Amino acid sequence: MHPSPIRTVDVATPGGDYAIHIAAGLLANPAAWLNLPRAAQAVIDSNPVVAALHEQPLRQALAPHYAHTTTVLLPDGEAYKDWASLNLIFDHLLATGCDRQTVLFALGGGVVGDMTGFAAASYMRGVPFVQVPTTLLAQVDSSVGGKTAINHPRGKNMIGAFYQPARVLCDLATLDTLPPRELAAGLAEVIKYGPIADMVFFDWLETNMDALLARDRTALAHAVQRSCQIKAEVVGQDERESGLRAILNFGHTFGHAIETGMGYGQWLHGEAVGCGMVLAADLSAELGLIDRALVKRVTTLVQRAGLPTRAPPMPLAQWFELMRLDKKATAGEIRFVVITEPGQAGVQAAPDALVRRVIGRHS
Amino acid sequence: MHPSPIRTVDVATPGGDYAIHIAAGLLANPAAWLNLPRAAQAVIDSNPVVAALHEQPLRQALAPHYAHTTTVLLPDGEAYKDWASLNLIFDHLLATGCDRQTVLFALGGGVVGDMTGFAAASYMRGVPFVQVPTTLLAQVDSSVGGKTAINHPRGKNMIGAFYQPARVLCDLATLDTLPPRELAAGLAEVIKYGPIADMVFFDWLETNMDALLARDRTALAHAVQRSCQIKAEVVGQDERESGLRAILNFGHTFGHAIETGMGYGQWLHGEAVGCGMVLAADLSAELGLIDRALVKRVTTLVQRAGLPTRAPPMPLAQWFELMRLDKKATAGEIRFVVITEPGQAGVQAAPDALVRRVIGRHS
Repeated sequence: MHPSPIRTVDVATPGGDYAIHIAAGLLANPAAWLNLPRAAQAVIDSNPVVAALHEQPLRQALAPHYAHTTTVLLPDGEAYKDWASLNLIFDHLLATGCDRQTVLFALGGGVVGDMTGFAAASYMRGVPFVQVPTTLLAQVDSSVGGKTAINHPRGKNMIGAFYQPARVLCDLATLDTLPPRELAAGLAEVIKYGPIADMVFFDWLETNMDALLARDRTALAHAVQRSCQIKAEVVGQDERESGLRAILNFGHTFGHAIETGMGYGQWLHGEAVGCGMVLAADLSAELGLIDRALVKRVTTLVQRAGLPTRAPPMPLAQWFELMRLDKKATAGEIRFVVITEPGQAGVQAAPDALVRRVIGRHS
Repeated sequence: MHPSPIRTVDVATPGGDYAIHIAAGLLANPAAWLNLPRAAQAVIDSNPVVAALHEQPLRQALAPHYAHTTTVLLPDGEAYKDWASLNLIFDHLLATGCDRQTVLFALGGGVVGDMTGFAAASYMRGVPFVQVPTTLLAQVDSSVGGKTAINHPRGKNMIGAFYQPARVLCDLATLDTLPPRELAAGLAEVIKYGPIADMVFFDWLETNMDALLARDRTALAHAVQRSCQIKAEVVGQDERESGLRAILNFGHTFGHAIETGMGYGQWLHGEAVGCGMVLAADLSAELGLIDRALVKRVTTLVQRAGLPTRAPPMPLAQWFELMRLDKKATAGEIRFVVITEPGQAGVQAAPDALVRRVIGRHS
């Protein structure tokens, strides 16, 4: 079988330039593994579920380039994206004598990628790392752009760094084994790019949602590539989220409150974001920025992707308390990403009464 | 009383440009506190000993600029430069609703500065921070250049970030209350700059060591300013220690082994560096790079500063194991900062036999 053609998206940030490669079968395609940072040692960070499926192919890809490759297995799930798991990586790196040249490979979803990235940012004040995302969510969002973090009991992603990978390698074949619930969670972040940046892409998603759910590789390749292009463009203009980048957080202010409020791991991040986008679109309409037809389209597409559109029951006081911890909040004022017109977004505060109405209507 | 004139050293790095201000009485001089990053909240990180002396003056300096100022007290000492202490800062920041604009002020020595810097680098992926060093060591070395870190049981400063402060404010008056042992520890890092960068400064130190030990403010002002100038020049050329910056680690490969081997807090960092410089100078002579007269001058000046020149008893195997964990080591090969000629330094490996001889001669 011929290897699939590789699609490439270039990312340029002050913190580093790198390529995202996208194709089915990348793990087994030697061309994708050339010219990575050189070192005596490579370390694969993964979790037991993903490692069982993809560790051996990754080891084969790395064997020509690194004399020693070892693996750290992290516990699976957002509930374990914490200091204790991060420290498993540090313990391993120190116990195996890893130096400042050592390259870390994040093999897994967003949790593995976020923790590996923060470990790479912090170990000896910075070693190179490569993202090998194996979930749709990680391929279209979390592995790109250099946001790394762990959670704190009081808030998601509160401790981390902006730290760019040396490369991102998206093997679409790894999506074959992804549980349906995680595929849907990834689609939330794909859908996100439409209302905030590209209504042509949103139209395309409405037409191709069934193909994506059926894991059609051509459809997936386009969805991943277009998502990465939009993200690369935004991150290239604002690596450290001083302005524009915040629009990528569409649906996340409500979403993080759901995730944290329910306890990490109860709702998947993508599920919370899917529901959060419905609320954020509704808020945009309440603010008079968009008409109700677009709210309906967003809600329908989220629903078709298999994502929840109703928030869980949670006291209003808890909603507001959790949203005030959002990283976009300034001097205690919650700030929301809203659709300012179809295909464009902005960040602004909203009257509490409107926010309450939106939450009430969707929970 | 007129305020002392402020000496200023400018630091320019890719990670940020900032000023180091040096004068006796800076805490009480409003001119030093203008144009800091604006926010609703400021947080002072300190320890109980330093806070008892300097927290109130710092709060007065901050009062005109920040609506709310709170304080976190960290346990005092290198043994506590760990994740548990770092997490005290994160807990406080989250419990008091600190946002991305919040400015952290590190009031204390190297331990407070390193931890506050890493907390600032990591909280919400980065908030501004200001160094207010109250020890000589922190004023001449650790508060400048953006190295932040915590220790790991297996090695010193293994987890951290390069993250530049917004300003460094060195109030020489805070050195009045510094215990003599800590004054000596700071002098180790001052002496360091001579053999690696400036023999005129080394001559000046030989002439003025007694004045420094007597805490003569004019002598201290010159020593702090010249040390910061040299450090700023090196860091400006190599922020992330890919090459030149490593020379600032003169004496530190041996020194870190002593510190870690003895248990954090038994030897002060400056004491271990003082002794380490004697060994590193000796190694430079063993390698034929400098003559014995300079080794003698370094040893004598270290001794006059009140620092140890003999290493503690430690098995050779442990020395080598600890030195292999040094961040300059590459592929298991230990690399030492050596004096290549008086006033210049380089980084290189050395035959084990020579290293053994040097350790044996000084322990």
